[in-house]
Amino acid sequence: MAISPLAPAAFPDLPVIDGVTFAAAAAGVRYQGRTDVMLAILAPGSAVAGVFTRSATRSAPVLDCQAKIGGDPSGPAAILVNSGNSNAFTGRNGVEAVAALTSAVEQATGVAQARVFTASTGVIGEPLPYDRITAKLADLAAHQDAANISDAARAIMTTDTFPKGASATVNVAGKQVKIAGIAKGSGMIAPDMATMLVYIFTDAVIGQAGLQALVSGINDQTFNCITVDSDTSTSDTLIMGATGASGVDVTGNAHFTQALHGVMLDLAHQVVRDGEGATKFVTVDVIGATDDSDARKVAMAIANSPLVKTAIAGQDANWGRVVMAVGKSGAAADRDRLSIRFGDITVAENGWRAPDYSEDAASAYMKNPELTIGVDLRLGNGHSTVWTCDLTHGYIDINADYRS
Amino acid sequence: MAISPLAPAAFPDLPVIDGVTFAAAAAGVRYQGRTDVMLAILAPGSAVAGVFTRSATRSAPVLDCQAKIGGDPSGPAAILVNSGNSNAFTGRNGVEAVAALTSAVEQATGVAQARVFTASTGVIGEPLPYDRITAKLADLAAHQDAANISDAARAIMTTDTFPKGASATVNVAGKQVKIAGIAKGSGMIAPDMATMLVYIFTDAVIGQAGLQALVSGINDQTFNCITVDSDTSTSDTLIMGATGASGVDVTGNAHFTQALHGVMLDLAHQVVRDGEGATKFVTVDVIGATDDSDARKVAMAIANSPLVKTAIAGQDANWGRVVMAVGKSGAAADRDRLSIRFGDITVAENGWRAPDYSEDAASAYMKNPELTIGVDLRLGNGHSTVWTCDLTHGYIDINADYRS
Repeated sequence: MAISPLAPAAFPDLPVIDGVTFAAAAAGVRYQGRTDVMLAILAPGSAVAGVFTRSATRSAPVLDCQAKIGGDPSGPAAILVNSGNSNAFTGRNGVEAVAALTSAVEQATGVAQARVFTASTGVIGEPLPYDRITAKLADLAAHQDAANISDAARAIMTTDTFPKGASATVNVAGKQVKIAGIAKGSGMIAPDMATMLVYIFTDAVIGQAGLQALVSGINDQTFNCITVDSDTSTSDTLIMGATGASGVDVTGNAHFTQALHGVMLDLAHQVVRDGEGATKFVTVDVIGATDDSDARKVAMAIANSPLVKTAIAGQDANWGRVVMAVGKSGAAADRDRLSIRFGDITVAENGWRAPDYSEDAASAYMKNPELTIGVDLRLGNGHSTVWTCDLTHGYIDINADYRS
Repeated sequence: MAISPLAPAAFPDLPVIDGVTFAAAAAGVRYQGRTDVMLAILAPGSAVAGVFTRSATRSAPVLDCQAKIGGDPSGPAAILVNSGNSNAFTGRNGVEAVAALTSAVEQATGVAQARVFTASTGVIGEPLPYDRITAKLADLAAHQDAANISDAARAIMTTDTFPKGASATVNVAGKQVKIAGIAKGSGMIAPDMATMLVYIFTDAVIGQAGLQALVSGINDQTFNCITVDSDTSTSDTLIMGATGASGVDVTGNAHFTQALHGVMLDLAHQVVRDGEGATKFVTVDVIGATDDSDARKVAMAIANSPLVKTAIAGQDANWGRVVMAVGKSGAAADRDRLSIRFGDITVAENGWRAPDYSEDAASAYMKNPELTIGVDLRLGNGHSTVWTCDLTHGYIDINADYRS
């Protein structure tokens, strides 16, 4: 699998977060010749917050994590993630697998089962061969290292073509607080529910309730604003752990909120940049809607339209398909007020092609790897920005034989 | 463009409908070397009913037709359709084009402008060169023939790979009543609003209000139950004309209703069979939902899922993606009651893979060109059936350079 042309130049140097260690191993869950399991351990007292898929068919690990979030934080916590098998729609076997894994983590590390958060990602509906993972736990416990976060980022990849990481360092009251996060996601990516797999760590001091509110709020503006293919995973999980090792309380601190927003947006964008088969990174910017909800409907209708996405893949300035998507979105729209721009080029306004429209200029713009589609509905103050990628032969190649 | 592998063997022999004549011509609106305009003329007194897209950005011809449906039926009526340009999002120019065309039809045929129904299909947002069409009207008026319906079916094609027709003959009170219809549609096909371009004719006697109610009702169970790509056109139009030439009143006649349902379903299925790039015709059958509306949400989530559609293209029995689509649909669903079948093969039940699941049997089934995905939610009596096709490289080929 070639690396996405939209990938960052390299995996970033992530700062060590005091109070968190990582290890990765090759358990052969499904993939051979690569790591596929990661174990992270967080120091006693770490606050752990989470956001999860709202799918009605969510996986056993998701249900288990949801039950555990908000529990007593006095002991250490652990995060165990495997790729290759999602342990979703696996019935009683799925529940047994989660119990076996969390119990084995407790045995290997001393972290209480009630504080072990698992996630599985990969094929749906096949029993998880969890004994392959438990066989690696002693090894994973023995090799814990604060510097191993990039190994963890690699171990959780499925159809991803590059590992995803982002970080920030914030000054709060004259002291430094650090944030580092990793993510995986490439296909079956749609917002409106939750996200893909994302793990973010900070050495800040913050209570569980405060951390949860912060993460949920920012999630709505970042991971919930991306879409690759309109399909929502059964396994989407975002977990954030705050170890408190810096001794700096960030509760209500605007700089910390802004930095975390930056890290989460960066990771969300990296997921889109690794969208299956993607060759274009597209920002869809809608303003002038009756309200924000209508703006989001229009933005998502554009971002999820197969015809808009294939036109972008073909570098075709086919703004008529944007008109179509606005029309089908269900949002209030007045055809004769609507304006559409590609980057800075106004292509349509007042219900028709812009008077100075130049096909050559619009076509030249479409050759850029990063594009902005702007829509002004001119009805009100509602606005929404979402991010997506194009729909290419690569997507078909990947998904017409993912299992085989 | 190769003909769809799902195409019928040949265009059917459609019966002549007394009171309707047709002609087609090559006006060069956009395509060269093929017909691209058709004119149909209906006898005085014909009832004309219509169903149209609910897109907020619908085209000038759609708005014009909507204003005219239900008008005084005493004179003759005409239907003028061009392919290659949709006259949608063309501002004042679009309105002028419709006025020029309907006025020219009146001049050439004597049909009052208020009874001339136009439709345009093709690229969005480019001014319609309507003078190319008006230049052909004398010719189209001179060559009207009741036997020319297949020429009309060909002239309205855009990315269609075959012309679409269907018919029925019904015995009512010992006399024959005939129905014949044509359709075009291949991409930008999504239900929930209206349809593509469909023209149906009958020699039955039925009032306008009765015909409208009949067509609207059946439309909800036929064209509104198909999807190729989840994108809804700005131009969708279904018009049905009843000439009354048979002298047989079909108002409230169950045989006629059933026959019309059959013709509309046949045409709707042909649109799916000609779905852009399609290699599989897929029936999605959902039962056991809380209500019909929830069943439809689930059926449409499956039918529009890029991951389900690419798995079908790859002949991969990836039922986990069906689980995913059920989960994201927003409908009430209990993972542990859900069962899924491919044809007659139960692949999943009670929240897990079926106990006697055979990958070989499921894979063998997926090689069929016509597939059924069945879902039983086991919650209530709601049911819904929708029809769709797979998502292939052919769809990308067609749509990554449709305009150029």
